[in-house]
Amino acid sequence: MRTIIKGNIIHAPQLGELSIIPGGCLVLEDGAIAAVCDAMPPARPGDQIEDYGDCLLLQSFADLHLHAPQFPLLGMGMDLPLLEWLDTYTFPMEAYFADTGYARRAYRRLAGTLLSLGTTRVCMFSSVHREATLVLMEELEQAGVAGYVGKVDMDRNCPDALRETDGIASTRRWLADCAGRFSHIRPILTPRFTPACSDGLLQDLGALAAETGLPVQSHLSENPAEVAWVRELHPDCEQYWESYAKYGLWNGRTAMAHCVYSDRRERQAMGDAGVLAVHCPDSNTSLSSGIAPVRRMLEEGVKVALGSDIAGGAELAMNRVAAGAIRASKLLALSDPDHPAFLTVLEAYYLATTAGHQFFGAGAGFAVGDKLHAIVVDDSALPPVPRPLTLPERLERALYLMGPSDIRAVYSEGRKVSA
Amino acid sequence: MRTIIKGNIIHAPQLGELSIIPGGCLVLEDGAIAAVCDAMPPARPGDQIEDYGDCLLLQSFADLHLHAPQFPLLGMGMDLPLLEWLDTYTFPMEAYFADTGYARRAYRRLAGTLLSLGTTRVCMFSSVHREATLVLMEELEQAGVAGYVGKVDMDRNCPDALRETDGIASTRRWLADCAGRFSHIRPILTPRFTPACSDGLLQDLGALAAETGLPVQSHLSENPAEVAWVRELHPDCEQYWESYAKYGLWNGRTAMAHCVYSDRRERQAMGDAGVLAVHCPDSNTSLSSGIAPVRRMLEEGVKVALGSDIAGGAELAMNRVAAGAIRASKLLALSDPDHPAFLTVLEAYYLATTAGHQFFGAGAGFAVGDKLHAIVVDDSALPPVPRPLTLPERLERALYLMGPSDIRAVYSEGRKVSA
Repeated sequence: MRTIIKGNIIHAPQLGELSIIPGGCLVLEDGAIAAVCDAMPPARPGDQIEDYGDCLLLQSFADLHLHAPQFPLLGMGMDLPLLEWLDTYTFPMEAYFADTGYARRAYRRLAGTLLSLGTTRVCMFSSVHREATLVLMEELEQAGVAGYVGKVDMDRNCPDALRETDGIASTRRWLADCAGRFSHIRPILTPRFTPACSDGLLQDLGALAAETGLPVQSHLSENPAEVAWVRELHPDCEQYWESYAKYGLWNGRTAMAHCVYSDRRERQAMGDAGVLAVHCPDSNTSLSSGIAPVRRMLEEGVKVALGSDIAGGAELAMNRVAAGAIRASKLLALSDPDHPAFLTVLEAYYLATTAGHQFFGAGAGFAVGDKLHAIVVDDSALPPVPRPLTLPERLERALYLMGPSDIRAVYSEGRKVSA
Repeated sequence: MRTIIKGNIIHAPQLGELSIIPGGCLVLEDGAIAAVCDAMPPARPGDQIEDYGDCLLLQSFADLHLHAPQFPLLGMGMDLPLLEWLDTYTFPMEAYFADTGYARRAYRRLAGTLLSLGTTRVCMFSSVHREATLVLMEELEQAGVAGYVGKVDMDRNCPDALRETDGIASTRRWLADCAGRFSHIRPILTPRFTPACSDGLLQDLGALAAETGLPVQSHLSENPAEVAWVRELHPDCEQYWESYAKYGLWNGRTAMAHCVYSDRRERQAMGDAGVLAVHCPDSNTSLSSGIAPVRRMLEEGVKVALGSDIAGGAELAMNRVAAGAIRASKLLALSDPDHPAFLTVLEAYYLATTAGHQFFGAGAGFAVGDKLHAIVVDDSALPPVPRPLTLPERLERALYLMGPSDIRAVYSEGRKVSA
């Protein structure tokens, strides 16, 4: 049976390029895109038609870096720098997730909030807690959010309550618990970051990555103090990334958050290995980390997507994160002659959608064969304009202004998950 | 008759200093603050009690620079630099306000939106249109927004449809039309900016300012191209500000938006004259203007308040503008050794409230004798936190996250204007 979804289609198959079909149709078969058309296809018996009239039919957002247990901290402690903020706010909050009852309440709320904001795919850190991580996966799966969730591994430079004492045994048990339980949520190996992981732990995680083929996520070159710390901890590594690479945690299925201080050599290593750089502009600004060299990365062929990085970032809404990436890039362009061109609206839309979805194996834009990930935006409640707007203008306005009340429907993995 | 408003009072009498009264009371007599108490005062017959329980009782916001006729443009054209954006988006949009019917619809919506976001005082640009400006004043007054509105004056370097051809005659007529009609909205003289005003027009406006004692608002040193242009137009002026000062438009009742490129000498001139610098961080970022030297201004004793500058800025909500000021200051601190200290949450709250309200003659924080300007924030729908939050933490979270649905009541000029 087919579903035909009608609206003003705007998708981003390429960086900086929009594909626009006014009054177009997405034809779905079993939730997968069978065709993207500029007119209603000839009717077949049983067709289900969802006509959204003059609404925008956009790609949904993919959030490639966020910390689920930090959701309750959103918008707090922003005047502290990274390492102090971790000790004062983050670690104490994560310790609460030993309580699976609390975890369920917080994660149910998070899953619903993500969908209400149009985010349908995530690459997410949980905490070190095996059970709370399963709860998180259950809540995301049940709500309809897809993607990767990682039980965090760390065994040093952290509070006792959050320290792994059994190496990766609990991670292996978590992977066993996950097996066959979820359709849209998959595990990802998640060393917190080099300073919080002993060499032995990184080595074991690398071996596990090789054994299982699982993807890997971590943090990279977020802050100068952190970069210097890694250099002390790994004197054999010329650069931060090598502390992951030497243990087999650096390949085409790796996502590294931040990369603010990744210079040409580190970026080259990312490009060569196919590592995804996850740009988290609000977090990097709010924790006074800096502005990542996104324009350079894109020019050098490094893959880049966007992350909210809550709660280092105070914005969970990826349209606001995309607008934040534009803003940060404008300020970088003003202060750094090496970055003359800021990120345009079209580029930011691509980074917040296609670039992120591709980490999960999706194609470019609304690609035939992909399960649909889309949002329907009804922008009629935005300020009234006395002339017709073009579809690119409406896309820009939606990126800057829209909130949950402007999102009329959300599709994830081919299913309508909220109305 | 007294009204007693109970809640967790947080106000900012001084830059960087909060005055906090958990479960405190604001006692109003005829809308004016008679006392700020830490407990319920002895009852009097007829007392009206408004108990907001555990809600936050905060100062409302003052938006010291925004363009009312640009409200429909919110979030559009942000990839253009200032002068190009004016020609492509701003001027054509302002021309629509020759139609007073359209103006009434747009301005009614704007007034309601301002209150829904907790902004109760504005220092606002209208367009050149006399009638639409009166409509704007009526709509603000009727909704309960207080402050200053200026009919724009410009007679060069603008489209014919927006060019004044009769000098300040229509401005004098507008002032005559205003007289005695409004209780909470007052006129302000508003030369658009030096490049758009002939010398004769600036001279006449200066004379009118001297004659009437009215306040003055304009733009200053927003963008390097604009600064260079003013230098060409006024070769006798060493700096931009002198093009206002030489015509008597530079004094303690003057508000100048932006001041991004105001160097020490220009800042000294502001401090000496008591001119208010209106910092518009979102606009300055979005139009790639730069970041104003706010920390330096504050250290040098220049008065600073905040403005949304819609639609150069894409955020009308002043809590978001305040958070944007923090973000911009963090990036400036990272790139400019002359600005080592970013703006803290407490400082941003002060700048968005007390610093702005004082331009209208208000005192510091919730000052006895002032008509109440306040908002009641119910933050219980924000993410659930498993420990009690301190009131400064709740203030921070509200600044970063709150939206209209978290604002339970708004008081303007001593009256409850929305519930």
